[in-house]
Amino acid sequence: MAKIVVDVMLKPEILDPQGTAVGAALPRLGFTFAKSVRQGKRFEIEIDGDATPEQLAQVEKAAETLLANPVIETFTVRVEK
Amino acid sequence: MAKIVVDVMLKPEILDPQGTAVGAALPRLGFTFAKSVRQGKRFEIEIDGDATPEQLAQVEKAAETLLANPVIETFTVRVEK
Repeated sequence: MAKIVVDVMLKPEILDPQGTAVGAALPRLGFTFAKSVRQGKRFEIEIDGDATPEQLAQVEKAAETLLANPVIETFTVRVEK
Repeated sequence: MAKIVVDVMLKPEILDPQGTAVGAALPRLGFTFAKSVRQGKRFEIEIDGDATPEQLAQVEKAAETLLANPVIETFTVRVEK
């Protein structure tokens, strides 16, 4: 059984209100390390057996179709142990 | 400038309605690779300079306080190049 992780983030040029809100809240809580914060989605997909290149290609297509909006978001697909 | 990534996922025993919905939609779109799908949040935090152990400890505290709800969620903190 393998775990494929798809990370979906807004494109840099797109305004990220959630990330901005988190970035503004951190100093109020006493945390001063952040220059900027962006928030996105993480999908953990469990599949039977090891991840074959065909399956990874399928996951890429599913990410384009369902998990991310390619107009405003970018995504990365990787296998996680 | 370093990028620290905080991944927040629901604990395994907690029902994940969004992940379940994605898992149910995939076969309808012709994707049959997924045994299960779980959805979580991904935070990309940019900081000045390299990530020191003190800053990573601060990020952990911020994750416990603001980014995740420790009652129902788990989180991981890592530095991404």
